[in-house]
Amino acid sequence: MELTVYLAGEIHSNWREELKSKALENKLPLTFVGPQENHDLSDDIGEKILGSQPNNVARDDAASSVNNLRTQVLMQKADVVIALFGEKFKQWNTAMDASMAVTLNKPLILIRPDSLVHPLKELSNRANVTVETVDQALDVLQYIYQ
Amino acid sequence: MELTVYLAGEIHSNWREELKSKALENKLPLTFVGPQENHDLSDDIGEKILGSQPNNVARDDAASSVNNLRTQVLMQKADVVIALFGEKFKQWNTAMDASMAVTLNKPLILIRPDSLVHPLKELSNRANVTVETVDQALDVLQYIYQ
Amino acid sequence: MELTVYLAGEIHSNWREELKSKALENKLPLTFVGPQENHDLSDDIGEKILGSQPNNVARDDAASSVNNLRTQVLMQKADVVIALFGEKFKQWNTAMDASMAVTLNKPLILIRPDSLVHPLKELSNRANVTVETVDQALDVLQYIYQ
Amino acid sequence: MELTVYLAGEIHSNWREELKSKALENKLPLTFVGPQENHDLSDDIGEKILGSQPNNVARDDAASSVNNLRTQVLMQKADVVIALFGEKFKQWNTAMDASMAVTLNKPLILIRPDSLVHPLKELSNRANVTVETVDQALDVLQYIYQ
Amino acid sequence: MELTVYLAGEIHSNWREELKSKALENKLPLTFVGPQENHDLSDDIGEKILGSQPNNVARDDAASSVNNLRTQVLMQKADVVIALFGEKFKQWNTAMDASMAVTLNKPLILIRPDSLVHPLKELSNRANVTVETVDQALDVLQYIYQ
Amino acid sequence: MELTVYLAGEIHSNWREELKSKALENKLPLTFVGPQENHDLSDDIGEKILGSQPNNVARDDAASSVNNLRTQVLMQKADVVIALFGEKFKQWNTAMDASMAVTLNKPLILIRPDSLVHPLKELSNRANVTVETVDQALDVLQYIYQ
Amino acid sequence: MELTVYLAGEIHSNWREELKSKALENKLPLTFVGPQENHDLSDDIGEKILGSQPNNVARDDAASSVNNLRTQVLMQKADVVIALFGEKFKQWNTAMDASMAVTLNKPLILIRPDSLVHPLKELSNRANVTVETVDQALDVLQYIYQ
Amino acid sequence: MELTVYLAGEIHSNWREELKSKALENKLPLTFVGPQENHDLSDDIGEKILGSQPNNVARDDAASSVNNLRTQVLMQKADVVIALFGEKFKQWNTAMDASMAVTLNKPLILIRPDSLVHPLKELSNRANVTVETVDQALDVLQYIYQ
Repeated sequence: MELTVYLAGEIHSNWREELKSKALENKLPLTFVGPQENHDLSDDIGEKILGSQPNNVARDDAASSVNNLRTQVLMQKADVVIALFGEKFKQWNTAMDASMAVTLNKPLILIRPDSLVHPLKELSNRANVTVETVDQALDVLQYIYQ
Repeated sequence: MELTVYLAGEIHSNWREELKSKALENKLPLTFVGPQENHDLSDDIGEKILGSQPNNVARDDAASSVNNLRTQVLMQKADVVIALFGEKFKQWNTAMDASMAVTLNKPLILIRPDSLVHPLKELSNRANVTVETVDQALDVLQYIYQ
Repeated sequence: MELTVYLAGEIHSNWREELKSKALENKLPLTFVGPQENHDLSDDIGEKILGSQPNNVARDDAASSVNNLRTQVLMQKADVVIALFGEKFKQWNTAMDASMAVTLNKPLILIRPDSLVHPLKELSNRANVTVETVDQALDVLQYIYQ
Repeated sequence: MELTVYLAGEIHSNWREELKSKALENKLPLTFVGPQENHDLSDDIGEKILGSQPNNVARDDAASSVNNLRTQVLMQKADVVIALFGEKFKQWNTAMDASMAVTLNKPLILIRPDSLVHPLKELSNRANVTVETVDQALDVLQYIYQ
Repeated sequence: MELTVYLAGEIHSNWREELKSKALENKLPLTFVGPQENHDLSDDIGEKILGSQPNNVARDDAASSVNNLRTQVLMQKADVVIALFGEKFKQWNTAMDASMAVTLNKPLILIRPDSLVHPLKELSNRANVTVETVDQALDVLQYIYQ
Repeated sequence: MELTVYLAGEIHSNWREELKSKALENKLPLTFVGPQENHDLSDDIGEKILGSQPNNVARDDAASSVNNLRTQVLMQKADVVIALFGEKFKQWNTAMDASMAVTLNKPLILIRPDSLVHPLKELSNRANVTVETVDQALDVLQYIYQ
Repeated sequence: MELTVYLAGEIHSNWREELKSKALENKLPLTFVGPQENHDLSDDIGEKILGSQPNNVARDDAASSVNNLRTQVLMQKADVVIALFGEKFKQWNTAMDASMAVTLNKPLILIRPDSLVHPLKELSNRANVTVETVDQALDVLQYIYQ
Repeated sequence: MELTVYLAGEIHSNWREELKSKALENKLPLTFVGPQENHDLSDDIGEKILGSQPNNVARDDAASSVNNLRTQVLMQKADVVIALFGEKFKQWNTAMDASMAVTLNKPLILIRPDSLVHPLKELSNRANVTVETVDQALDVLQYIYQ
């Protein structure tokens, strides 16, 4: 049984590659999708497609409209969603994607460091499973096939 | 036509009272609901009801389970959701509630300061209306009745 | 049994007042809601609430975001939707609202002049009932209570 | 990941062929579907299948019933919807299809010329992304795969 | 707790009055709604509102469009649906309404004489409860309040 | 694009074979599913699987439970539903299946002889397309691919 | 804000009365509904309404069909569901009702003694809040109003 | 037509293997999925992935969170659900899964011994088909293909 996994969250580390290569090693029949990982492209995509915008609000809105379309298309294809929170940044997109997943009845695995237990407690409580490492998230995926 | 408005977000300022008293002045037939505004109670509610928990993760999970039940009950009653982001704190609950609202097709008004335009751009793009002040949010509610 | 009726369409004639006064004469327990009928206000509402916008696209987007929130709130309250098309204007909002109603399983009455039979044929086919006059639409509402 | 794209809108220009051939050049794994592009067939299909109808209203209703079945089947298969508005015609079917897409949570790309910004402002605000050219719509689709 | 009950089925006997008067005797807080019980009006309503139609098919389609709008409005208000089948007539509307109720997760009570057990077996199997008399259907409603 | 078509209705004529062979001739990529066409098996299946039942009501209920499971599984797979009514029998299953299809937003083609226009008028009005012959239904399916 | 609470579970102790009287003391605006608490009536209701059945399976099926209709009507009215498990009996209805509540997105409070932690662990994990006593469940309800 | 079947229930006997091998013999194109059948792994999986937990409640909650994610992923893929109840154990997971299936409109086959007719009567009444043996459940699946 092939499953599609949407990988929400931090695009400043290589956790997605780590997860993908371990899934490959374990021969799990998973397809991974997720947000644009090129941060500059993600910020520029609105003006790149639509041309120069009159101010920063419009520039950001243009970019986010394309990013949101991408997320909506790919998350609707997903059977499972993994959301990773790191120590830095506001990461409101990750919270937004994770909450969308739960509300759409997509099973959610939350990865967050011990330091974020308190501020993420309500989201963690809504997730199916909360773990601290990418390896643990892979263990959960692997368990589906055991 | 009476409407129920869920007020998600910051519980460290009195923006809810400000909004409620202005709605009253304008005689708008609105009922306001929202999260627990007593921060200590919100953090303690799990142990207060369920008794002492073995560690902080369990303590936080107990509290968040009660807070999430409250949110689910009240947001399902809401006709409109307003989510306010301030300058401080991680505010992942606010992002979670705002995303839940949009995903449930609840109309969403986002209030955020100019300084948060960039990190909130995707959530702002999914909201129906994004404003900067509580007064502007009230103007939007008032427009429904004009 | 009280019903709420959303009146989509043309805001350049007084057809809503005509419908409301006839419903009153017939003592039908109906509550009528609908879009902003003050055309200037409807076009200005974005800048009125959010302040001056950098160009016409942004100005129109600001206004439409507030208008769409209003429509979403009120149409979700509606038990029946009436959409009236006139001879003039592009009236894409009316088509948009009518299609939203059908897709949300809200019963739809379409009012359109004989001259628009052909261009509106697909929307007419999706409506529950298509009529030519406001009186006929009222007859349909009245039949629910007979 | 293969995606199906429904192409709503104008059938008087060859924009669909342009889009398809560019998608092919870029080797995007897209399947395109859409309305009947043969205008005469689209108008005649009711009588062609059901035989001569008593008047124009019945003739149009017969044709639209078959066209609507086609749209419903194909749009339910679609992962993304693109709706193009041109300068001519009333194009209420395009508005109807676009609104159906948004209401069904199908991501929507709206293509419209600068001259139609104002009359399409509410629909544009509900779309995920609004662009002016077919090339820009293709850029958005391509971004999903980057 | 007040409940609304949609009474689908036969309009040639006075079973609805019987049920209503017994509900009144038992002081059950029920509101009853249902199809047009004046058979001639039900057949004529299309032409009465829309004017003379070119043939019988168009005349019947006009009437049924108004009858279907009525059913859709009222059944969406219903908490319980009762469908009564008698010995005569084809009663396809009753089967249609009963199936719509089950598919919409409206609890369904089916009333049918012993002679119709076999032809109604699949519909009976989908109903919540199948009874033979109006009194038994009332007993089921009364049990909700015991 | 492959589509699955559920063929509801009469099992006493060979209309399904006729439709299938014509679809094959036209090389339409359609998969056809439908109810059990062996009438005796359909009536006996309950006792065949569950053993002898105490009376006819129980025997019929046992059979219908298995038939309904089959219908639910296959109709949920269907992209289009065709329902054929003939001159004989009560055909309440056909009405039930057709209404289930419409309520589930499955596009519906209704086939019925001229003699049944009046008793089927409400169901016909809810169907996407109503035709008189199997050939016409095939024409509608074929149009999806033109 | 008035809320309706469905009280699923054990009918052999007076926990419902205890909860109701405490809600009254605290002046919580709650309406409580639930299953038939008269056990004999609950078992006899099928034969009482439908008459003598041929065997125990049919007798039980008749009773359960009426009980299930009751549950479906009342749970659809509920804003919150409380399910209480005791030490005795199989209590599969309680598990069924609790799971139905969660699947319908009704917030669920689970009450179970310490001795049942292990066998109820999956259901407890799906509930919003799990407590051990009726008083704790009331505390959760009360927190909604604080 | 390939179908996926979720096999809920008892993991202490080899009924799943029996069913699978008979399906293979009959060349039915079925894919079977289900819960973790290694009971120890199912109980340990939480601590195995997340590490040692502070007490039994936390240990059980950790395990159940992973088991529930698995069930949610696999049941959402299922076209049919079979739930088997045996004579021993509380089997609340089986009741939970069966009720989830019915509420999600997944067709349900219930297998239970004669001794459990009474305590399972409400769940049996909500199932599509109730049988006593694995062979009978296979007969029902086979009937879909006949």
